[in-house]
Amino acid sequence: MIVTLKISGKFFDDENPTNLEIIKKSVLSLLNSGHRVAIVTGGGGTARKYINLGRKAGIKEAHLDLLGIWASRLNAYLVAFYLGDLAYSKVPESLEEFIEKWGYGKVVVTGGFQPGQSTATVASLVSEATNSDLLVLATNVDGVYDKDPRKFSEARLLSRLSTIELKKILELTQSVNAGTYELLDPLAIKIIERSKIKVLVVNFKNLDKLLDIITGNISIGSLVLPV
Amino acid sequence: MIVTLKISGKFFDDENPTNLEIIKKSVLSLLNSGHRVAIVTGGGGTARKYINLGRKAGIKEAHLDLLGIWASRLNAYLVAFYLGDLAYSKVPESLEEFIEKWGYGKVVVTGGFQPGQSTATVASLVSEATNSDLLVLATNVDGVYDKDPRKFSEARLLSRLSTIELKKILELTQSVNAGTYELLDPLAIKIIERSKIKVLVVNFKNLDKLLDIITGNISIGSLVLPV
Amino acid sequence: MIVTLKISGKFFDDENPTNLEIIKKSVLSLLNSGHRVAIVTGGGGTARKYINLGRKAGIKEAHLDLLGIWASRLNAYLVAFYLGDLAYSKVPESLEEFIEKWGYGKVVVTGGFQPGQSTATVASLVSEATNSDLLVLATNVDGVYDKDPRKFSEARLLSRLSTIELKKILELTQSVNAGTYELLDPLAIKIIERSKIKVLVVNFKNLDKLLDIITGNISIGSLVLPV
Amino acid sequence: MIVTLKISGKFFDDENPTNLEIIKKSVLSLLNSGHRVAIVTGGGGTARKYINLGRKAGIKEAHLDLLGIWASRLNAYLVAFYLGDLAYSKVPESLEEFIEKWGYGKVVVTGGFQPGQSTATVASLVSEATNSDLLVLATNVDGVYDKDPRKFSEARLLSRLSTIELKKILELTQSVNAGTYELLDPLAIKIIERSKIKVLVVNFKNLDKLLDIITGNISIGSLVLPV
Amino acid sequence: MIVTLKISGKFFDDENPTNLEIIKKSVLSLLNSGHRVAIVTGGGGTARKYINLGRKAGIKEAHLDLLGIWASRLNAYLVAFYLGDLAYSKVPESLEEFIEKWGYGKVVVTGGFQPGQSTATVASLVSEATNSDLLVLATNVDGVYDKDPRKFSEARLLSRLSTIELKKILELTQSVNAGTYELLDPLAIKIIERSKIKVLVVNFKNLDKLLDIITGNISIGSLVLPV
Amino acid sequence: MIVTLKISGKFFDDENPTNLEIIKKSVLSLLNSGHRVAIVTGGGGTARKYINLGRKAGIKEAHLDLLGIWASRLNAYLVAFYLGDLAYSKVPESLEEFIEKWGYGKVVVTGGFQPGQSTATVASLVSEATNSDLLVLATNVDGVYDKDPRKFSEARLLSRLSTIELKKILELTQSVNAGTYELLDPLAIKIIERSKIKVLVVNFKNLDKLLDIITGNISIGSLVLPV
Repeated sequence: MIVTLKISGKFFDDENPTNLEIIKKSVLSLLNSGHRVAIVTGGGGTARKYINLGRKAGIKEAHLDLLGIWASRLNAYLVAFYLGDLAYSKVPESLEEFIEKWGYGKVVVTGGFQPGQSTATVASLVSEATNSDLLVLATNVDGVYDKDPRKFSEARLLSRLSTIELKKILELTQSVNAGTYELLDPLAIKIIERSKIKVLVVNFKNLDKLLDIITGNISIGSLVLPV
Repeated sequence: MIVTLKISGKFFDDENPTNLEIIKKSVLSLLNSGHRVAIVTGGGGTARKYINLGRKAGIKEAHLDLLGIWASRLNAYLVAFYLGDLAYSKVPESLEEFIEKWGYGKVVVTGGFQPGQSTATVASLVSEATNSDLLVLATNVDGVYDKDPRKFSEARLLSRLSTIELKKILELTQSVNAGTYELLDPLAIKIIERSKIKVLVVNFKNLDKLLDIITGNISIGSLVLPV
Repeated sequence: MIVTLKISGKFFDDENPTNLEIIKKSVLSLLNSGHRVAIVTGGGGTARKYINLGRKAGIKEAHLDLLGIWASRLNAYLVAFYLGDLAYSKVPESLEEFIEKWGYGKVVVTGGFQPGQSTATVASLVSEATNSDLLVLATNVDGVYDKDPRKFSEARLLSRLSTIELKKILELTQSVNAGTYELLDPLAIKIIERSKIKVLVVNFKNLDKLLDIITGNISIGSLVLPV
Repeated sequence: MIVTLKISGKFFDDENPTNLEIIKKSVLSLLNSGHRVAIVTGGGGTARKYINLGRKAGIKEAHLDLLGIWASRLNAYLVAFYLGDLAYSKVPESLEEFIEKWGYGKVVVTGGFQPGQSTATVASLVSEATNSDLLVLATNVDGVYDKDPRKFSEARLLSRLSTIELKKILELTQSVNAGTYELLDPLAIKIIERSKIKVLVVNFKNLDKLLDIITGNISIGSLVLPV
Repeated sequence: MIVTLKISGKFFDDENPTNLEIIKKSVLSLLNSGHRVAIVTGGGGTARKYINLGRKAGIKEAHLDLLGIWASRLNAYLVAFYLGDLAYSKVPESLEEFIEKWGYGKVVVTGGFQPGQSTATVASLVSEATNSDLLVLATNVDGVYDKDPRKFSEARLLSRLSTIELKKILELTQSVNAGTYELLDPLAIKIIERSKIKVLVVNFKNLDKLLDIITGNISIGSLVLPV
Repeated sequence: MIVTLKISGKFFDDENPTNLEIIKKSVLSLLNSGHRVAIVTGGGGTARKYINLGRKAGIKEAHLDLLGIWASRLNAYLVAFYLGDLAYSKVPESLEEFIEKWGYGKVVVTGGFQPGQSTATVASLVSEATNSDLLVLATNVDGVYDKDPRKFSEARLLSRLSTIELKKILELTQSVNAGTYELLDPLAIKIIERSKIKVLVVNFKNLDKLLDIITGNISIGSLVLPV
């Protein structure tokens, strides 16, 4: 099985290495069971810091995006170096370079590719290019809810939903003003649908149970099925 | 003034060099008046041929997109070599490489950058990265109509419209099934809006009048204003 | 055994994937028997289209050659993507890059390297650099004839000949005006001779029997022995 | 005149763009007077954050250095993007790449090059390769003192000193345990001496007066003369 | 005017820099008169040393050629560094890279490109790609003779000849066994002919008079005209 | 076990391939016992020739160092090509590239990385990045002596010493004027100490006994222990 693992940048903002250990434990369990793993890292606090500073200084959008991309690559290097021999030591700077390096058989860790593109889109492109069976979105909620759980106490976690359902929920729960799709933006969903990639939304804290989830031993998080 | 010129791939399907001559004439007139020009080429019939063949053979979507991208780069090389000393001789393979080469002062001609991305999105990213004043979409219609001119004889060419109006029209006139946005897809519009780039939709045959259009001497095509 | 397979560009002009399937079947049978395979693709109809268009437009010879090379690389990407995990996913752009990628153990597919050089020369350089035991020229005739079979009905297929004999035949059967050596140009023969590479000229349709030919089970095509 | 400007990473830790403005003002005044400028940036707080996190996680020294180098490159991108057209948009990753890009005539901004090497050594190598007349070390003290000013109130700022004197002072004032040479490490001094590069140690806040200092109009900071 | 200058590797075997000075003087005189210059260097004694050692050790032909190419690149770096700001500081490793760098406007110095290719062929490809008006072969004889001047005292220097005449003379005067064409091999002549490049064969010692020769003020060496 | 092997450039000055054979024999014995090997080559006589010529011609220090680096890369290519399939065929040009290539599992052979850096420092960086258990310095003496053996007949070979002892001996035995540390310069020792790398100084002629030395079967040369 091939698994693409998208890790939100916020998990690298911590000062202690617990999160790195969770990632490694999860990756090792997958590799040891014969699966292959690709990892996509977000930019997190470092990205935010440089983008904010750059915006105040009047740097334009495309270049602000590039600062965020370089920050996400810094996180990717952190993960790649921590994984050591398990991973390819160079962070690819485009999907074509990713595909090339993926051919060597190791874990490949990547940050962003180019301006105007969310980490979720990068993760869906990587899933598609690696022919992944599953795209895992490690986030800080337990999965996809039918309503925004921060506003509605009766919100219910959906253990299974289609991309069509997901799109409806995202339209309702995400602030249009914010302009940021926290889970999957339309382009990411489009790629997932065209290549029929399953998506698992799971709490980062549960990443160490990933092998059990994949093998169907336990059911945690939300599974999104492409239509 | 900085101008990004997107040329649909179909204009390279012809067996005679008239279209190349139109492009060069247009570029030369802009350069001679002190403007800078970036060019984005589509894949056209060559892309279609390889994608069709690859799809029949069972090649996956991400790699089919790459075949289309390499075809668009072939068109870009054709234009770059035809422009000779006016243009940078290497076709960039990512936005970062584009930005780097753009710094040398010459015309830079590029094809696609990566899978899951329309030529229109590439053109809007290039417009943004070059800080373009205008993105010119050279197409085979005379501009944007209020209705699909192929279906409604009373369709009226709009000489000026906002991106909001454009989005409404695109939703109505473009076949949802086809899944292809001939002019601008949502991501392209989003980039245009965030960086406030003006877009001129113009018939390819009128490209040689581009300098006159830009300087306001004549009014041809449709001008789309970002909101 | 190491085999370099040169495939004329015309086999990619077809609209259906039969030829790709023949190539894959042939490659798979070789790999499964423990052999290694390098593939060199010609530019075919796509190359011709761009070269013709470029020539009419006044583009110079070196750059026309580059257009043909990029077309041959498009064919190489088609083959590499179709072979999937069996092949290295990036098409090398020089012999040095080829050698580097060859070290990874997979099939490497390459198009042309540089202007002023036939695909046959590329294939002979690749044969030499990979230390190939055999260079297979897949073509649309059944082998080398003592006379031009299109003109002389009594022309006889030679199942075995030396490079000296080949040179004599090429001088006689190939139109000097055309300036194109369909099989092997002098530089290609020189390289074959200096590194003592055997050459098999075989009909593309018989490529799926390549393993049997190599192992000596059947005798098809013409074997050219370097002197 | 050619000037290499080394900017300590701490000047990028601020949340507001004042420091970027000081750098730009200084660079612009130099360029407008016909000088050329190379910039070397340190890693600052971002480097420290990733190195600390990586060290806790057990990543080895060479790779910790690489994390610091990538952080310094992030700072370099920030400066390069802020300088816009004045600077080359790509941050070089080795001295050879730096030299190549320097040939294009623009400001080149670089972070670190490789493990085991201080930013000061990078700056001295860049000074040497660009044939710089002056290496400016922008720091948070006013120059070189005869004693550690943090410990001795009678410490006196030296407006002029030789590299031999500097070495003696560094041995006395810098903590051996710390193992970090804040100004110039022995290798940096060796390079400065072999290529006879003058060094100006100046308070970052005074960078905007750099042109006046260089032209001898005012005397601020400490000038270190190679012997 | 654009001039490609091929300098035999033997001129770098000397222990003193006189030959470098001749090259620089010649290049400077051309640049100062508004001409552009490309330089191709041979491998000389360094190439011979490594090829001999490698051959004794059993290294194969393609890789021996690569050793010779790297030696010629060392000579190219020597010339490029000596020319300083006049030249691009990186030696291109393929014709495509050469073309790209040539676009920046400086002198580009290159060694060999790939195995199986003489320096003369490299020089003719460079002449073609740069659209050179003249290819200058700086050698240790005074030009082309009607007979081998080392054997026949009555041999006459030809001040003007066609490529057809040259081919005849080369066939007669050059040892077939040696297998090395000292001036121009068949592929080099083919390229010269197809792109109509004039060739000047001149004694290296007279390179400093090159501007006078080009402008027709004096007549030295042999001018070979393509047919 | 991982072993980094530093081979002084002088061992490539010989006209016969004996030294190459010693290297291959040594490498093969290590690989066959399951160890991994990295090789760093010096520039030797070729470096000296180009540096001398360049210095007479007035080329600056940074660029003279680059000529020496390119000469050391030529030696690295010689070794890599001679090792054939055992080694990666491309010589890395920076530590980051080295690390990337090292991930593929083969022997990686490298020359110098950048100006201002001894081959010993390169070797210590490579040892650190590969997490080597041992750095072997193959030289033309039998090990480290307590006094300079060329001056004092009573000089005694030290079979074991600490880096502190080594530093004292180097200060005494090496000519300060010369400015060259034949064994290990201060930066190299600093890296060895921070990453706790053991160093074996051994006569090049004994390289073929390396496996026996490593496994403790015989004791030859001097073992330097980091403190």
